[in-house]
Amino acid sequence: MAITEDLERVARMVEARLDALIEPEPGASGLARLIEAMRYAALGGGKRLRPFLLIEAARLFGVAERDALDAGVALECVHCYSLVHDDLPAMDDDKVRRGRPTTHVAFGEATAILAGDSLLTLAFDILSRPTTAADAAVRAELVSLLAQAAGADGMAGGQALDLAAEGTSLGPMEVARMQAMKTGALFQFACAAGATLGRADARAREALAAYASAFGQAFQLADDLLDAEGNAAMVGKAVAKDAGRGKATLVALLGVEAARARLAALIEDAEASLAPFGTRADTLKQTAGFIASRRT
Amino acid sequence: MAITEDLERVARMVEARLDALIEPEPGASGLARLIEAMRYAALGGGKRLRPFLLIEAARLFGVAERDALDAGVALECVHCYSLVHDDLPAMDDDKVRRGRPTTHVAFGEATAILAGDSLLTLAFDILSRPTTAADAAVRAELVSLLAQAAGADGMAGGQALDLAAEGTSLGPMEVARMQAMKTGALFQFACAAGATLGRADARAREALAAYASAFGQAFQLADDLLDAEGNAAMVGKAVAKDAGRGKATLVALLGVEAARARLAALIEDAEASLAPFGTRADTLKQTAGFIASRRT
Repeated sequence: MAITEDLERVARMVEARLDALIEPEPGASGLARLIEAMRYAALGGGKRLRPFLLIEAARLFGVAERDALDAGVALECVHCYSLVHDDLPAMDDDKVRRGRPTTHVAFGEATAILAGDSLLTLAFDILSRPTTAADAAVRAELVSLLAQAAGADGMAGGQALDLAAEGTSLGPMEVARMQAMKTGALFQFACAAGATLGRADARAREALAAYASAFGQAFQLADDLLDAEGNAAMVGKAVAKDAGRGKATLVALLGVEAARARLAALIEDAEASLAPFGTRADTLKQTAGFIASRRT
Repeated sequence: MAITEDLERVARMVEARLDALIEPEPGASGLARLIEAMRYAALGGGKRLRPFLLIEAARLFGVAERDALDAGVALECVHCYSLVHDDLPAMDDDKVRRGRPTTHVAFGEATAILAGDSLLTLAFDILSRPTTAADAAVRAELVSLLAQAAGADGMAGGQALDLAAEGTSLGPMEVARMQAMKTGALFQFACAAGATLGRADARAREALAAYASAFGQAFQLADDLLDAEGNAAMVGKAVAKDAGRGKATLVALLGVEAARARLAALIEDAEASLAPFGTRADTLKQTAGFIASRRT
């Protein structure tokens, strides 16, 4: 399947760019250790799905891969920061991620908090650089979009809703809202940033926003199905933990069969949203199919 | 002394703007609680010294107060986020700040971490808005400057150096580097952002950078002297704790008398740096004098 090769190729580009942008500090100072922790959190794995979506969205408008890469890398920094902070003992208290000890287990809590803070800050640093987009108006818009996606109205707010929901019983609408913020907002950013880089018109933006919405929901559902059915060795992190800690998921609310049906419908929605782009959007369509079928 | 009235007037403006920008969320959801924690951390006190410096630096170039306010508010969001995260149990483990329980004591650790994350993100959101600066190139430059001041090369890196230094013995040069990053970088941003808003030339920028450097060192020294000599009821937070936990300070290295002499010399340096601006810089000069004499 060609999509996995595309994903792997872009993942290598993202990894190399992160490696170059987060330069190791020589010596053994607290600063060297902070940067080591940032590298630990940002490098060494991950599907880099968010930068991939951003690059593919930008490609719809003729933007070259190399001209969308840094915006994608900034997005990946935000994703990695969120994993570091969400894994902290005060939050989800996860000890394993991508088959390795989580950042606070490897570096201690204080360094993990600062590494997350610094990755979030680095994201905005990257977006503000002329090498990310020559036009300052594009850079300022990317910053605005990412800040809204990542902050209290987006990802961080979704995590707050998720934490507060533990042990309570959310309804499907509340779970959907929480997941749209916690997980969906960064996928929305990926598509909106691609559109911004490509100076897309309102109609194209709306089509991509609809795709991102269905894609984000499908991604979360696939993730929850993996957690409910998966195998820790394949997934590379603890599984079946959501139910154990009373986490709100649609799989728990709908059951596995209904969740699988809903996942299939969301993938159809995602693909249908891309109709205005014709065959140019084939990779984005395949990406939606890919996440529905993933097993890790 | 007129400077304290100016400071109080600007502090009220900053407070009112933060109050408007961090809108309470109705209800009792996890999101409402997150925003309540952001408001707790950002509102209700603080001298708002950093926005004051930014506004006064911008005024040197004819920028009206109202046109520099939002950049100052963004800076204050970063300052407040840093206090929330630095106070966490894994970091400095402080329980009182400005005479009130710290954010994690009042709201729990998870919410405090997310509130800090969200205030940092909000800072970049604010900087990216056309209402902060009409010219997108100015907005993008403000984002770039703030990200560099706040991240691993600035404030967060300084905090990492500070944490690693506990229980070890840093020399004066190492303490100076740590403090230039941890405390100085945001003062540098205040002056640089004022210069950016005012489209200052290179010479004016250099003069302001020299002022910010001396000011930042003086501020830290005054703070350390307060900690060494102060009285918890007046200062509003725990005092004499730096020595107790083996924190690196210049007061500990130099002794109180030499530290006081150095503080006086730094204030002279700060004032001398402003010579190119003549009497227009009188407020900035008075601000340097004010921080040297402050008792809280």
